[in-house]
This record gives sequence, C-alpha cells and structure tokens, in this order.
Amino acid sequence: MIRFDSDYTEGMHPAILQALLETNDEQTIGYGEDPHCEHARQLIRQAVQCETADVHFLVGGTQANTTVIASILKSYQGVLCAGTGHINCHETGAVEATGHKVLPLASADGTITAAQVDAYVSAHYADGSHEHIVQPGMVYISFPTENGTLYTRAQLMDLYAVCQKRGLPLFVDGARLGYGLAAAGNDISLADFARFSDVFYIGGTKVGALMGEAVVIVNEKLKPDFRYNIKQRGGMLAKGRFLGIQFEQLFQNDLYQTISRHAIDLAALLKDALTAKGYTFRYEPQTNQLFVNMPDAKLPQLQQDFAFSIWGRADDTHTTVRFCTSWATKEDNVKALIASL
Amino acid sequence: MIRFDSDYTEGMHPAILQALLETNDEQTIGYGEDPHCEHARQLIRQAVQCETADVHFLVGGTQANTTVIASILKSYQGVLCAGTGHINCHETGAVEATGHKVLPLASADGTITAAQVDAYVSAHYADGSHEHIVQPGMVYISFPTENGTLYTRAQLMDLYAVCQKRGLPLFVDGARLGYGLAAAGNDISLADFARFSDVFYIGGTKVGALMGEAVVIVNEKLKPDFRYNIKQRGGMLAKGRFLGIQFEQLFQNDLYQTISRHAIDLAALLKDALTAKGYTFRYEPQTNQLFVNMPDAKLPQLQQDFAFSIWGRADDTHTTVRFCTSWATKEDNVKALIASL
Amino acid sequence: MIRFDSDYTEGMHPAILQALLETNDEQTIGYGEDPHCEHARQLIRQAVQCETADVHFLVGGTQANTTVIASILKSYQGVLCAGTGHINCHETGAVEATGHKVLPLASADGTITAAQVDAYVSAHYADGSHEHIVQPGMVYISFPTENGTLYTRAQLMDLYAVCQKRGLPLFVDGARLGYGLAAAGNDISLADFARFSDVFYIGGTKVGALMGEAVVIVNEKLKPDFRYNIKQRGGMLAKGRFLGIQFEQLFQNDLYQTISRHAIDLAALLKDALTAKGYTFRYEPQTNQLFVNMPDAKLPQLQQDFAFSIWGRADDTHTTVRFCTSWATKEDNVKALIASL
Amino acid sequence: MIRFDSDYTEGMHPAILQALLETNDEQTIGYGEDPHCEHARQLIRQAVQCETADVHFLVGGTQANTTVIASILKSYQGVLCAGTGHINCHETGAVEATGHKVLPLASADGTITAAQVDAYVSAHYADGSHEHIVQPGMVYISFPTENGTLYTRAQLMDLYAVCQKRGLPLFVDGARLGYGLAAAGNDISLADFARFSDVFYIGGTKVGALMGEAVVIVNEKLKPDFRYNIKQRGGMLAKGRFLGIQFEQLFQNDLYQTISRHAIDLAALLKDALTAKGYTFRYEPQTNQLFVNMPDAKLPQLQQDFAFSIWGRADDTHTTVRFCTSWATKEDNVKALIASL
Repeated sequence: MIRFDSDYTEGMHPAILQALLETNDEQTIGYGEDPHCEHARQLIRQAVQCETADVHFLVGGTQANTTVIASILKSYQGVLCAGTGHINCHETGAVEATGHKVLPLASADGTITAAQVDAYVSAHYADGSHEHIVQPGMVYISFPTENGTLYTRAQLMDLYAVCQKRGLPLFVDGARLGYGLAAAGNDISLADFARFSDVFYIGGTKVGALMGEAVVIVNEKLKPDFRYNIKQRGGMLAKGRFLGIQFEQLFQNDLYQTISRHAIDLAALLKDALTAKGYTFRYEPQTNQLFVNMPDAKLPQLQQDFAFSIWGRADDTHTTVRFCTSWATKEDNVKALIASL
Repeated sequence: MIRFDSDYTEGMHPAILQALLETNDEQTIGYGEDPHCEHARQLIRQAVQCETADVHFLVGGTQANTTVIASILKSYQGVLCAGTGHINCHETGAVEATGHKVLPLASADGTITAAQVDAYVSAHYADGSHEHIVQPGMVYISFPTENGTLYTRAQLMDLYAVCQKRGLPLFVDGARLGYGLAAAGNDISLADFARFSDVFYIGGTKVGALMGEAVVIVNEKLKPDFRYNIKQRGGMLAKGRFLGIQFEQLFQNDLYQTISRHAIDLAALLKDALTAKGYTFRYEPQTNQLFVNMPDAKLPQLQQDFAFSIWGRADDTHTTVRFCTSWATKEDNVKALIASL
Repeated sequence: MIRFDSDYTEGMHPAILQALLETNDEQTIGYGEDPHCEHARQLIRQAVQCETADVHFLVGGTQANTTVIASILKSYQGVLCAGTGHINCHETGAVEATGHKVLPLASADGTITAAQVDAYVSAHYADGSHEHIVQPGMVYISFPTENGTLYTRAQLMDLYAVCQKRGLPLFVDGARLGYGLAAAGNDISLADFARFSDVFYIGGTKVGALMGEAVVIVNEKLKPDFRYNIKQRGGMLAKGRFLGIQFEQLFQNDLYQTISRHAIDLAALLKDALTAKGYTFRYEPQTNQLFVNMPDAKLPQLQQDFAFSIWGRADDTHTTVRFCTSWATKEDNVKALIASL
Repeated sequence: MIRFDSDYTEGMHPAILQALLETNDEQTIGYGEDPHCEHARQLIRQAVQCETADVHFLVGGTQANTTVIASILKSYQGVLCAGTGHINCHETGAVEATGHKVLPLASADGTITAAQVDAYVSAHYADGSHEHIVQPGMVYISFPTENGTLYTRAQLMDLYAVCQKRGLPLFVDGARLGYGLAAAGNDISLADFARFSDVFYIGGTKVGALMGEAVVIVNEKLKPDFRYNIKQRGGMLAKGRFLGIQFEQLFQNDLYQTISRHAIDLAALLKDALTAKGYTFRYEPQTNQLFVNMPDAKLPQLQQDFAFSIWGRADDTHTTVRFCTSWATKEDNVKALIASL
C-alpha cells in the first residue's frame, strides 16, 4: 500500500531526526523558553523579514487556530471565513467551544474576497438591531485553502486593506504554507504574510516536521499575554524545545522551501499525467493536493495498491478523490500511481 | 549549570529515539489510528490488567486534564480537588475555560480524603438552595501529588468507594505516575488504578517520553465519543503515531518501571544526604521531588552551579526549594549537588 | 404613530395586571417555588395533557433557547436548525457562547424537514473522520417559524420520528406558539407538542404576558437538575412568582387561546385587504406576521403614521416589510393601516 | 407565617404598580430603547452625578454579575473577590460558565482590602511562571456584602486606588445598594460609586422593584458594545420598558432612598431588641440583614410563626439564622417577631 491520502503519513525530515539525536542529552528549561526555541524564533523573524514579530510554537493546526482566534475575539464576536474553512468544518467546533461563532462566507473554491468581507460588515452595521447578531471580529483564511487553491498577492492585499479599514485582524492558517509558497503560479512571498496579515502560522506538521506550527504575530495589539492563551488552551509543551529544534532545522539552509518544492514538483508530475490521460479536477490543481474526478469503476482497483481520500460525488459515475504529495513523497511511488491510472 | 529544577529537562529515552529512527519512513494513517498506537494500547491494557480499557494518547498534562474533565462534567458541575491541585493552580484556568468550576478542598500535603469528599457532597445536597451552587460532578486527584506525596492503597480505595457511593467519577492525574509507583513506601500497583478509579493517565512527558500522556478510561460510561473531545480540545495529533511509538517503548521490557526506579533511587540518595546534613523537608520526601528548607544565605552559591525551583518561604531565614530527579538524572550530578550542600 | 413593528409593543393583558394588584402584598418564597408558580405549572400540565411534564418559567426567548440547548448537548455536539432560525441569526451567538455550534440546514420558508435531518445525520456518521466534525446532538425548530410559517401535524410527527430514530431530542421554540395554534390552517394542538417533541416552550412575552416563557420538558432524561441550568444561565428570577402569576392568568378561562385568536383574526383582516389590493407576500401569510412586498415609493408615506419592520429587498422596486398583530392590537388601528395602503 | 427569610418576599412598590397601570396600553419599541428607559437612565445619571455614565437595565443579580464580568475579562483572566462573594458561592458557576475563574480572597466578614488585592497582584507577577496561572483581571466587591457588612468610604477609595494602579476595573455588586446607602454608619454616597468604581449596579429586585438591576458603567473603556453582551447572555428583555418604568419610579421623589431607610429603621428596631435580650450576632449588624446566633432549642417555636434563613452552626448549642427586613416589611410584623424572642 502506497499512501497519498494525506501529507502527514511519514515521520520527520532526516535533518530534524539528526538534530534530535544531537541535542537529546542537553538540559534545558521548558515551555518554549530554551535556546533552540529562541534560535528558531530568530530564524523565522529573518525569514519573514520582520524583526519585531512574536513567534510561538504550537503543536497542531486546530490548536493554533483555536488559540489564536480565542485570543483575538471579544465574547460577542465571531470569525469570518470561507464556509469550507477548516475551522468551520473539521475541528469539532473547537472555535465554538471557546464561545465564538464561525461566520461562514460562500466560497466555490475555498477562497473569500475582500468584497465579501466588506459587504458582510456593511450589512451587519446597517441592521438596526445588530446587537442581536454576532459581531464580525476578525477574518480567517488559509493559504493554501482546504481545496488546494491559492490567493494571489493582489487578493491578499485587498483582503488585508478591507480588514484594516474595518478594524478586523486578518489571520492566515498556513498549515500547508510551504506548499503554497512553492506553487508554480504563486506570487506571494513568506515576508508578504508579515506585511499583509496580522497573524499567521507556518505549518510544520505537513511540511517536514513531526509536528508543530509556528505562529507569527505581527500586529502589536495581538502580542501581549499570548502565552497565557497557549497555556490555557493546552498547547504549552513542557519540552517545548522539541518544537524549536524542528523549526531550527526547517529554517536553516532553505530546508522548508526545498522540501516544499519537492512536493510541488511531484504533484505537478502527477497532475500532468492525469491531464494527459483526460482526467478532470474539481478544483484547480495549484499545490500539493489534487482533487481528481475518478470513474467509480476505477476505484476498487486503485484502492488495492494506493491509499487516497474520498472527497465526495463528482457526478453520477464519478467520485472526487484527493491525492496528496508531500516533502516525503517518493518519485517512484508517484510513477507507480501514474502507471495505474 | 546542572539542572534539578524539573523532571523535563532532557529529551527522550534512547530507546524511543532509536524507535523513531527505525520507523521514520513508514507510511501510516494519522490521528492515533496507526499500528504503533494500537500496539501501545494493547501493551498498556496488559500493564494495567484491564483488557476492556480505552486508551488514548494526548500531548500534555494540562491538555489531558482539561479534555478528561470537560468530557465528564455536565455544564453546571464542578470538579473536586485539593486546593493545591494542578488544575486549580497551574493551568491558567483551563478547566474554567471549558465552563466548569474547580471546587478546592483544603489539603496540607496535596492529598484529599474520602471523608472530605463525602462531607462536601452531603453539605451540598443538604443546602436547601443547592441549585444555586455548583454541583460536585467528579473528583480529581494526582498521584503523586504536586507536593510529591502519595496516597496509600487504602486511601485510594476509600476515595473510590465514596466516589462510587456518590456517583462521582474519580480521575487520577498521573503525570508522574511512574515515580509514584516506584516509590519506596508505595503499595499501589499500576493495575490498582484500573480497579480503583474511573479514568487515569500514565504520564510520559516526565517519565522518559519527549511528550505524551496515556489516558486510560475504565468506566464504560466515560468511553463513548472521547475522540470528539480530543479533537475539539486541540489534542488530536496528525502524526499520532509519534505518541504510540513512545509508549510502545515505555511499556516494553519494563522500561517505564526501570527508568522510574532510577529517578527514585537518585532522589533517595539525595534525600539521605540532605537528612544526614540536617536539612528538613516541607513535605515528606516520598518520590522524585524533594522540597527542602534551605538557608537563604546558602542560595546564591548553590544557584551558581545548579538550577532548582524556588517554592516559597519556609521561615524568616529559610526558603523551600524543590529538587527533581528524573529518568535522565546522572548519578554524578546528584553527587556534585550533595557535595555542594 | 401606530405600531405594527413587533408583537411586543404593549404591556400585559389586563387580567394579569389585575392579578398583580391582587397579589402584590403576598409574602412568598422565591425562585419559582411559590404557590402561583405551582398552580401555573398544574394548569399548563393540564393544557398540554401531560401530567408528568416538568414546567419551568424563564424570562425570555433567547434565555429559554440557550438554557434548554446547553442543558441537552454534550460538549462536542451541535444543534440542527433552519439557517434562518432565531438561534442562528438573532441571539448574538448565545448558543455558541455556551460552547456549541449551531448546525444550519437550508430552508426557504423557515421550516426544515425530517428528510433533511435524517440525511444530515447519515452523512455525519458516513464520514470516516466524523470525530473531526461537530456531532449533531439535537434538533431545534420554531412554531411558528421566524417567517410566520407553520409545520403541519404530519411534518411535526415525521420530524419527531426521525429524531427518535436518531436519538436526537427535538426542541420547539414556541415564542409565538399561541399564534401558531390559533392559525386558520393549523392542525397541531397544544397537547401534540407534548407528544411529538422532547421539550418545548409556550411563549408569554409575545402573547399577553409582560415577559415569560414556560418551558415544558416531556422527556424524562432531560428533566434532572434543570434548575441548576436556569440558575447558571442567569434565568432564575428571585421573585419568580411574577412569572407564575402571569401564566396562571393565561391558562385560565382559555385566555391564551382567546387572545391569540384575536391577533390571528386581525392579521387575517389585514391579509385579505392586502391581497384584495394586489399586494404579494414573501412568505405564505399563516399567522400574526405578514411579510408584504411593498413598493419602495409607498414607504415614506406609510412610515409617517405606522411603525413596521424592514425585512429586506424584494426586488428592484419593492421592499419586504413585516407587519405584526398581537393580542393587544386594536381593530381600528388595522383599519387605519388598511385605509393607508 | 410571617416572612423574614429574604428581602424579596413581596411584589413591587405601589408607585411602580400604579405606573404599570398607567402605561400599560402605550406602544413602545422594545429592548430597552423606549422613552421610559431613556428617562430612567437620565434620572440615574443625575442620582449618581455622572452625566456620561452608560446605564443598562438587567433582570437579575446573577445575570448582571455574569454579563458585566464576562464583558470585562480577557479569556485568560479571572475576577478577584471575597471567598464568600455571591459570584463564588451562589451563582452555580455562572462566571465559570463564561470561561473565567473566580479568584477568592480570604475574608472574615465579606469585605476584602486594598492590601489583599495589591499583594495578590504582586505575587502573581512575581511568579516566574505566571503564564501558568490565571491572571487577575478585575475586582468584584458587593456593597453591602453577603454578610450585610459595609465598606467605609476610605476603604472603597483605597480599593479603587489599588485597582487603578494595577489596571484592574473595580465592579461593585449593589444588589442591596439602597440598604447600604441608608445604613446608619455609612459614609459612602451613591455618587461616590460613580467616582470610585468602574462599573456598579443599583439593585431593584430587593429594593422596591419586582425585578431589575441598573448597571452603571463609568469607565469609558467598558462602555462599547455592552448591549451585545446583554443580548448574548440572555438579558435583553423584549419589553424592556418594564425595567425602565420601575427605575423611573424608584429614582423620582427619593423613593429609592426613602424605602431603603424604612428597611434599615426596622432592622435597627429588631437589632436593638435582640441586643437588649442578650442575643449576639455573627457579623456586625449594619444593614437590613441580621445574622443572629439563636439557641437551637428556640428554633422550633419560632419556625411555627416566622420564616427565616438557617445560615449555619454558631456553636454546639446555637444556630446562626438570618432575618431580613425590606422596603415592604411591616412594623407590626417586626414587633410580633420581637415579642416571640
């Protein structure tokens, strides 16, 4: 069985494993205040070109999303996001469990627009009884989206401009940030996220780390006391250095970028093969996730040798399935998959 | 600088590191449903002598406490615990953040008694307006306690009997469980916790693992849908196998017991030396944490070479400090410390 | 200015005011345990033909909705309802503030169907990673709906049957229950709600009372400790008798039914006049709320003499406006409105 | 049976009842935006001598406490209060249900001191791992306290000064404010609360109204969006004018002060008689609540004719009981009680 069902099927990048070996006997203080975390923070500040950013390491995506969102919103505020957003669909109501409503916006491909946000906020305050309605308090997007699609730099800047105008912090879920940055058509840089958002995170779990997300807080107002939030939400790792050691490796020698490109290259290889064979895609294949409309009859055979996700019905005779590549995907495995299609 | 300030200053046991090396390229499904987690669950069920127990792996102690407690309590219920309990003092209100009050009971040494619980519950229902008061819904203890003290088997059985009588699930925080089990005077076995509690966890973070706590649910009523709770509270690790691999190692070849004894042996070495030198202890030194009343004048010199925790004032001229040993503590370091005292 | 903008523009029915006068000097115990509350409970049990029902008096609709929903759901569960449901749109996220997600179902007229609920639950459990998704834990409907529409008895029975099959309590928001029961085409009786739901409430605020909603719990499992929930959510009135006195009056001499019919009769008068004049309605006019598509040009003149709600755009030249009648509406005022149309 | 068990045993002051009669047929808009509420707000602003104060009317004390506290605290903050405080003991964890810990301070008589607050805050930030501990975010006191005791003006000013220094809003629960203001030894004026607190409320439920508490927000930072909080916490009454009408009456013609003095005068009558007969008091009898140490043997006879609260054991042969007077207490009833003692 060869797995393409997710981008978290293997362990960690060998460089990280090596670093764990080398540092295992060190004695350090806990809770993210050790020298490895400090060094990793500095490397990330350089990478995002923002020396004043606060950087915190959290264990996973749901935890990062919940902690950031709950730290920003007032009790009567909600978070705007695409209806397909991870926080709206796949986090078991973690945001609601902190007392806040997720305010979904219609989205065909996983992205939302500046115009949507602006219109939503206008409509809210135009309502004479807006106190009876959850107040929009921030905006959440993911890059890439759940559907593997991307914002352009212009779209991101527009969103950020509307957010600034409306006083809404913009938060970017970057669980797969590396794959978005490395995508062929992408024109957004890592540093752009520090310019055009208030807080974002750089996903490690799906991009080379065993686990870990680096939350980067740019907006001064969102910085104070963030560690209280981390602790309260169960995200403060006693041996926090484990997260620091991983990000130290990922942000040295361009490792994060290099391994992201690897995933993108193999996704492109698969995409081109699928296209050549006449397959269609549910969403534009831009990053490491391909949503392929597969004849139902073809599935049983494929499933014998390959693991992939079932995304939903495409039409009466086709199922949309998802193939993921990652930093760890082997080219031979992609070729074996292509041969089976 | 030699660190005795906590029992989470080093990385992971070499056997775990070796297992990570060997398994790193495996492809597995995520979220704790991989073969390593399954195997570790089976090993733990054997160790606790309860084949029907549900075993879940969580990342840390605050997360485990919060997830278990929030999964048990009804909205108007609170959790009884020692006033010094970790959930009451050192988790930034994580339990309250899920909507529940912590109901503290007076405790001199970190333990609470069956009689206290019984009296509290009696008094609650004796109050004519008890609907105006948070209903006690469960009992939380830790073994060892925050103060390094232990329950006897008889005390545990009494507590469990009262809990059974009152319909209150008993939850045991075992962040340092190994050190309690290995303590000289301890008469409780690992299997006893599966007999005399409803749910408990076996701490990994402080006992050989890089991180991870194994929650063992014995009570049938507490089992359904627990994974929803894990996900909602941000504790479901994508690469959940990392936790399984660690507990696979800890529960093979008596590793968990062996490394726990190591910590206890070195704590005993230190305790005996301290006693011989006339030092007194704030709490009875039973496990790997020693709370020593240290002359204030002695502190500056000690702090040059050793890291330890300041626990509070002992009297006008003494400070209580905490020294921890762990699975990773080196005998030479203990001897160096003793030499300095 | 004559008000048709809501059904809570006047005070209370004169019979209630008279009862307040007569009982004002009585000394009673508080918190809803006085003789008036007991008597009102008994009258309501008779009216709903369920001697075993628990009856609790709450102050308002949002409070009743929140308290009931939070008392039923487990922490990882959400409540299914029409996307237009009051709890989803007009309660400032009160349900989310208790930690639960509202799970909206598409609805054109404010109602949802048994088939929708069944399909939603099927889809939930068919998802391999349903633990990542909020679990549907109950169903909320309102009768009449926000749009003034009604369920038929057959529809209600179907919904209840699906809820029973799926193990989901069915909760009916009856803020305007009287107006639904009194509606021309309605075939559901008050007693039917005690048969075909698990918990519902009889609205007083909009039907004769100054305030107050009578929550009727039929399902045995939902009864225990409900008063804890009331207190915790801020709904336990010290002088609870004020609610009992009001419902005593409403449920004597058919008062609730009589005054509800009054509102319906006047709504019918207005509806017939509007229809005769060629006006169309956004939703089928069934109860005391009429959603009329009004030429924009007509609005300024009407607004000089009458208050009504702006509901939204109907088309390029029309606005949907809402007129409400109530137990207190004067026939002359309706005639004056008709004359102005 | 004559009731002295609480100060909410009767209905409302006749002047309010008369106002209800006179205004019942008025048509007004809802949710507290009607002319009566506006007028009552203006009267209260005058009474507290603060023209810029925001005034909101809530239904009850628990609701007022919860709504105010939840509107102020950040998610990781808690509220300091006396261990005996109402929010800590008698609100079924309503504050915790909004996610916040109540931080109790030791108190013998129900009051807390500026020094206690200052020391608590100092100790918090002195802790090297204060991020693991709930951050103190505000201070709650009640005037009078649960034990019927009072702060002096100097004590209030000291508390406020410390709160200012520490950046903690000071919130005064004034459920029985009238009785405190009218007490013999009291040197605090109503206007002082607008000077020496950030937000407080003027209790109506126990002082002449059928229900209702007037929240007065003085601190500019606490004003924005408070109505969202009211709605979310279920406290926005549709027929909000009912609250306005009551406070209009209470704050005209010195009614609030006059009826408060009546209660105090009768409490003094009872207190003097008790003292003359040799009874002792658990707490200094300052306001309308008397906590009397009663011989156990005396109770059965007294309970035949009088209702009062059992507060707890005084010693082996005495029980502390509470007698309350109120605006509605009849002098003859007090004399009857005295005769029985």
